[in-house]
Parts: sequence; C-alpha cells; structure tokens
Amino acid sequence: MATTYAPHFIASETTSSSSNPIKMAQDELKKIAAYKAVEFIKSGMVVGLGTGSTAKHAVDRIGELIQQGVLTDIVGIPTSKKTHEQALSVHIPLSDLDTHPVVDLAIDGADEVDPDLNLVKGRGGSLLREKMIEFASKKFVVIVDETKLVDYIGGSGLAMPVEVVPFCWKFTAHKLELLFKESGCVAKLRICPETGDPFVTDNSNYTIDLFFKKSIGDLKAAGDAILRLPGVVEHGMFIDMATAVIVAGDGGVTVKNKER
Amino acid sequence: MATTYAPHFIASETTSSSSNPIKMAQDELKKIAAYKAVEFIKSGMVVGLGTGSTAKHAVDRIGELIQQGVLTDIVGIPTSKKTHEQALSVHIPLSDLDTHPVVDLAIDGADEVDPDLNLVKGRGGSLLREKMIEFASKKFVVIVDETKLVDYIGGSGLAMPVEVVPFCWKFTAHKLELLFKESGCVAKLRICPETGDPFVTDNSNYTIDLFFKKSIGDLKAAGDAILRLPGVVEHGMFIDMATAVIVAGDGGVTVKNKER
Repeated sequence: MATTYAPHFIASETTSSSSNPIKMAQDELKKIAAYKAVEFIKSGMVVGLGTGSTAKHAVDRIGELIQQGVLTDIVGIPTSKKTHEQALSVHIPLSDLDTHPVVDLAIDGADEVDPDLNLVKGRGGSLLREKMIEFASKKFVVIVDETKLVDYIGGSGLAMPVEVVPFCWKFTAHKLELLFKESGCVAKLRICPETGDPFVTDNSNYTIDLFFKKSIGDLKAAGDAILRLPGVVEHGMFIDMATAVIVAGDGGVTVKNKER
Repeated sequence: MATTYAPHFIASETTSSSSNPIKMAQDELKKIAAYKAVEFIKSGMVVGLGTGSTAKHAVDRIGELIQQGVLTDIVGIPTSKKTHEQALSVHIPLSDLDTHPVVDLAIDGADEVDPDLNLVKGRGGSLLREKMIEFASKKFVVIVDETKLVDYIGGSGLAMPVEVVPFCWKFTAHKLELLFKESGCVAKLRICPETGDPFVTDNSNYTIDLFFKKSIGDLKAAGDAILRLPGVVEHGMFIDMATAVIVAGDGGVTVKNKER
C-alpha cells in the first residue's frame, strides 16, 4: 500500500514484527504502534498525550519509562479530561498550552488515515482539544492499526464528527447536510447510548456525525466551508497535520513520514 | 460619503429627516434608524431580532405595532437571551431556527460598517447567535448611527471580537495576534468590569477582542484564517451579509442597499 503514496513527501518504512505472522488481536496491534511511537520521545520533551484506545497504550508506556528513569524531565499536555486523569494515574508531570505553547511531539490515534496522511479524528469525542494541541506540535505522530487506512476521508463509512454549539444544533446539522449533498451526506446528532441524551464534549458542545456515501473532494475547501457555518466549532478532519503515521498490521509495523 | 461606494452593487438613498438640522442625541439617531427598518416588516414574516442599544428600539417598535394590530402573524427569532427577554416583555411571539430555519428579515445594529457594507459585530457580546440567525435570513437590515461608519474594518480603533472556547484561551489569543502581526494586532480577553472575571457568552465561551493599527486586507481570507485556528468558535466580521444598512445622522436617514 505504501508504494501508492506520492514519493516526494511521504516516506515509508516497514519492519516485520514477527517471523510467524499469526493474526494478532486489534488491541495488540494498537499497542505495538503505540510503543513504537514512544521511541520518538527524548528526555526533556513537551509531549502531547492523545485520547482513545490506541493513545492510552502510549500514555501508559510513557509513564512506565518515566518510572524506570529511562525518560526524564517530560512534560505531558493531555488532549482530554480523560487523558488528564489517566496521565496523572501513571505519574506523568502535566501542563497545558497556556504554559507550554510549543509542544515538541504529540502522539495520538486516528479513526481514518487517507493516502496523503490526512486524518479523521473525534469519534472518541475529543477532537477540539486534540486539534489545538496537535496543531501546536512540532511533530505529530499518529498511531493506528491497519483497519484505519482508507482510500479517502469518510471512506470507512463511519462518522466524520463536527463539534457544534448546542444552540439550534438541528439547524447547523441541516446546513452541514446541504453542504455535502452531492456526497450523499447524512448528519446525526451523537447520543450517549447509556442515557439517550446528546453527547456533551469537554467544551460543553454537541457533536454532529457526518456520514458520506462518496468522497467530498478537496478537503481544505470542505474544511473551510464547514468552519464558515456559524454554529460550527471545529471539524474532525486533520489536514496536513500528521508528520508520521505508524501503522501496525499482521505483516509488521510501517512508519510513513510526511513533511509539513 | 455614499458616492464613494461602488455603484454596481450598492444603491444609496438619502432623505432629510429635518429641515432644521439640530444635532440630535446618538440614541435618538439609533431610534430613527430602527423605526425606518421596521417599515420593511410585513405581516406574516419571520423576523430576526437583533441585540444591542440600537436593535432594542426595533424590538420595542415591533411590539408596539403588533399591539396596535398593524402587524399580525409575526414570529420573532431572538439573537440573544437578553433580546429573548425583551421580546417576551413586549409580547412578540417567539420561535427559533430549529423550528423556523428560514428567516424573512433580520434587523440588527453593528459596531462598524465599511464602505462595502461589511460589518463588525459582537461588542455587545452576542455575535455567534446573531451570525447564525442573520446568516439564515433572506434580508438582513443593519441599523446604525453615522458614528459607526468606518473606512475599513477595525478602523474605529475599537474591538473586533472573536468568540473562543475557554480551554487554553491564552494560547488562542497569542495565535490570533500572530496571525495579524503585520496589522499591529493586540488581543485582549474581554473582562466583566463589575466582577473582573472573564466575560462569558450565551454559549459559555470567552471573547478575545482584537485591536488593529491598520487594515487587515482581504476580509474573507482573514476570516478563514481565524476560523482555521482550533479554539476559535466564530469571529465578529459579518462579510457580505447585510442586504441594507440604514444610517441615521444629523443630516437625515440614508439607506444603502446591496445585492448578495
């Protein structure tokens, strides 16, 4: 798959993780990618700590290496309240963007990765804080298992989330659908399965999940159009943000690099 | 002043409100502009109700005309919690964008009006809801006294407000300053003078006021760049949104129209 990427800005590297490629559990693949990413961290770095089932492994590993004295003087910047709690529990010293406006390296998972290393994030519900911190990061390393690779953004058939203000969210959802009418867009308010109430983000907003039947075309133009809708706070497309994507699959670990 | 506007898309009309032009109080001028705007409303219309000292006169006048039976079947869509209260007090039947996604006419004040009828709004603190409702309006009539006319957006030396999420607002303020460094931008968090605490919008966000020393150039490009900063919810530039601006001055009332 790596050979289909434009060679001038993406470099790929594959290492076999096993001479006996038994199909591994998805969580095991996530852990392999996470551990590989943590190798990029050096003592003294300010590190953005991602949110979600893959990033969780990275946060645990960073805590472990601090505990062992392998990593020293690390400052973690958590991308969600949930990650804040987890990082505290493994004794990572924490700060925020106001105090550390430049982040050396951020590590986070993604819901989709396209061939140009553009991402969909936010199915876990933390896209805004993630985007703020990863936008401020000199390097942004994305960790995924191979099921997250897609031919185009939205290509998994799963949600591209948009964080919106609760005020008149139905109106905003309708405007989003109209914007991507030609891609067969369906907009759905995210609901908490436990309570049946709208899911509320860390910033007290709602999430509208967009589902596309086909590609939305130029991602930057699409992103700008979404942001121009009053009522939209942020969208889940992370365009030209990842500097490396680590993909763990049954065949091994692949690292794809991108200049930005 | 009207003759300096590009004639192909802006039409101006001036009527003398007085044969004896005694200098009128600013609030009296606001009232004249507001009453003139209300003349555009017809029975049966869905009307966006603005927020602020000028729009307040329009809301009062609409209530009066409903009371007198001159206007019937009006549905008001308030642009803030404050206007919601005021409109209820003068017995205007109210709804919202979710129920009435198409607004026939919105009437609101502005903090600045440039020669192309682009606006700065939000010094009163309600820019997001105002923008949502006025964006949904077929006609958007702006009412100002002549002190609000500027040569360029930011030209009054007063604030261009940006609504941001409270999370790491200092970081966002810094990024905003950097974005308009060449225009000598200074970013300040809006504070409640009574309490000294950050001013909180109807959507539970903060407001960063931007002050420019000179023009920021292409407004659409500037608007997109602001919106692309994660952490920004909305900005106070209303670009290509006004369809008419009613200006009340000592010399009379001027109506400037614009196609969109």
